[in-house]
Amino acid sequence: MNLRLKKLHERWSSWKVDALLITTLENIRYLSGFTGSSGVIIITSDRAFFLTDSRYDSQSRDEVDGLKIKIYKKQIEEVASFINKLKAKNIGFEAKGLSYDTYRRLKGLLHTKKFTPLPEGIDRIRAIKDTSELKLIRKAVNLASIGFKAAINCIEPGVAECNVAFDAEVAMKKNRAHGLSFDIIVASGKRSALPHGKASAKKIRKSEMVIVDLGARYQGYHSDETCTFIVGKPNKEQKKIYQVVKDAHDKATEAVRPGVKASSIDCVARDFIKKAGYGKYFGHGTGHGVGLAVHEWPNISPYNDNTVEEDMVFTIEPGIYIPGWGGIRIEDMILVTKNGHEVLTEMPKKMTILD
Amino acid sequence: MNLRLKKLHERWSSWKVDALLITTLENIRYLSGFTGSSGVIIITSDRAFFLTDSRYDSQSRDEVDGLKIKIYKKQIEEVASFINKLKAKNIGFEAKGLSYDTYRRLKGLLHTKKFTPLPEGIDRIRAIKDTSELKLIRKAVNLASIGFKAAINCIEPGVAECNVAFDAEVAMKKNRAHGLSFDIIVASGKRSALPHGKASAKKIRKSEMVIVDLGARYQGYHSDETCTFIVGKPNKEQKKIYQVVKDAHDKATEAVRPGVKASSIDCVARDFIKKAGYGKYFGHGTGHGVGLAVHEWPNISPYNDNTVEEDMVFTIEPGIYIPGWGGIRIEDMILVTKNGHEVLTEMPKKMTILD
Repeated sequence: MNLRLKKLHERWSSWKVDALLITTLENIRYLSGFTGSSGVIIITSDRAFFLTDSRYDSQSRDEVDGLKIKIYKKQIEEVASFINKLKAKNIGFEAKGLSYDTYRRLKGLLHTKKFTPLPEGIDRIRAIKDTSELKLIRKAVNLASIGFKAAINCIEPGVAECNVAFDAEVAMKKNRAHGLSFDIIVASGKRSALPHGKASAKKIRKSEMVIVDLGARYQGYHSDETCTFIVGKPNKEQKKIYQVVKDAHDKATEAVRPGVKASSIDCVARDFIKKAGYGKYFGHGTGHGVGLAVHEWPNISPYNDNTVEEDMVFTIEPGIYIPGWGGIRIEDMILVTKNGHEVLTEMPKKMTILD
Repeated sequence: MNLRLKKLHERWSSWKVDALLITTLENIRYLSGFTGSSGVIIITSDRAFFLTDSRYDSQSRDEVDGLKIKIYKKQIEEVASFINKLKAKNIGFEAKGLSYDTYRRLKGLLHTKKFTPLPEGIDRIRAIKDTSELKLIRKAVNLASIGFKAAINCIEPGVAECNVAFDAEVAMKKNRAHGLSFDIIVASGKRSALPHGKASAKKIRKSEMVIVDLGARYQGYHSDETCTFIVGKPNKEQKKIYQVVKDAHDKATEAVRPGVKASSIDCVARDFIKKAGYGKYFGHGTGHGVGLAVHEWPNISPYNDNTVEEDMVFTIEPGIYIPGWGGIRIEDMILVTKNGHEVLTEMPKKMTILD
């Protein structure tokens, strides 16, 4: 068994199951090394199996470390029959990583009636990054910087948002990014009030704000960062709101250290924006974990009262979005360190004016 | 209500529900026009609602056609309370589009106990493409051709697989592809035996086969196509196996017309390959539907005894993969027409030798 499976086994007793069925692709990659798009892991107290279909036969033998490989033809039927042969009485599964349909079909085929959702998933273990993961995240972060530099070079009045996204993407991929974390967001002028405004054919104009939100994927790990640029001389309101978002971002970042509740970090940003009079224009959470998934545990939101811990990586990304006017968001990726935090992202977040 | 919602309502009685909860993003886009990444649709016999969070407030007002928009803060709680206010007694949901976790949380909050999976989903309606969809699919197909031409220009001994993928991607995106259908597969030499061999740093060598499998996304719609190239003069075995795959592909394509079982189309390709002595080297299904999702209804597999119908679009993609030797796959996208079929993809599939 590999080190991560061993770590999982250390928690074995807390789940109170005889066998675990793992179906989330990120968790499968985390525990086995498998990078394909179809397969499941089944773990008992002393054994670990990886099951996939014939398309991934050779690939799984190259990649999978520390688990026995089985090839199936009909996934659900053969996974159920494999579990039945293990004679496990209580089988745990990932409630967020299994569709209701698959749940129902598996349950109908399993001999045991105890097929129970895990109260807490592998995603909680995955939230604490090890040295090898941090190295890949830092690489993905560096690729994002390369993307931003290309975007900055491209932005000027008359250029379409989608051209900015294209240049950023090509720059990252030329430098060996394996993919984008998500479709690049370039939202200028009034469109910057769309928190998820994908790059469009709209041309950037003088005096507009431009939100650029991008990330790179490197060996499965992601980065996620946002800069808001001003094209030309900012007006008073742009300056003021930028400063509110920047201060909210900086104060929330300052609050990050082991043992602090995620909701408290969110509260720092949210309260600051509220007191500045823009509360109703900040509708999303302050951040989210980043790793093998671009959105993962922990959410930095008003609803998450769990504490953040050393070696977690998440974003801090407050924003103000005023319909008809535009929006500003500032996003960094933060690593929780033993005594505080480290900002992983590299682009400076003071107001950048692109003439 | 828009036309597609009307089509859905024509089937209303067959589902035997008072309200429908739609949670699959592709189905949401299909029914409402919304292109974002978070939201749900709730439909009753005479009303239709789209619910999303504040990030998508402006965007949904721009995009959503024929549904009333509501903004929530806490998705599951507010969706449940909205459904409760409708006083629907029997609520249908998409079993494949809802995680067990969300299912369980919603069920706990709903007043009615009748929260039932749909026996047959919106994906069956979506399988029949209308004129506007076919136009977008044809555009995505044309973008794939542009990708293949760039790949062909790039492939020569000494070039890394990932460079071929990069050139194909840039060419498609320069021509306004909105994204890739999936990470481009470029698998050369022995790696071509991996049906899903993502482009690696491996350099292509003389006399190798190179599988290139790619697709473009255009306004939400996908293409998916595979060519297998030979770099230099093919040997006898390469020629022979290429011809087996090509004949299997052509015969399966010829079998496509309305009313034929999907499993029968699969059987034509599978039997031909089996009779040629390569049965155990063809482990995957013969094809899959393509549209808003790159893999959708109908599967062309031994297990799908439903018939294919006019205006369905799916792939025909038999392959032979011999570990240690390599693989060959030939994939086209096929439209079922009134009296037969039309091959949508544009690249010729006779053996292409790249010197």
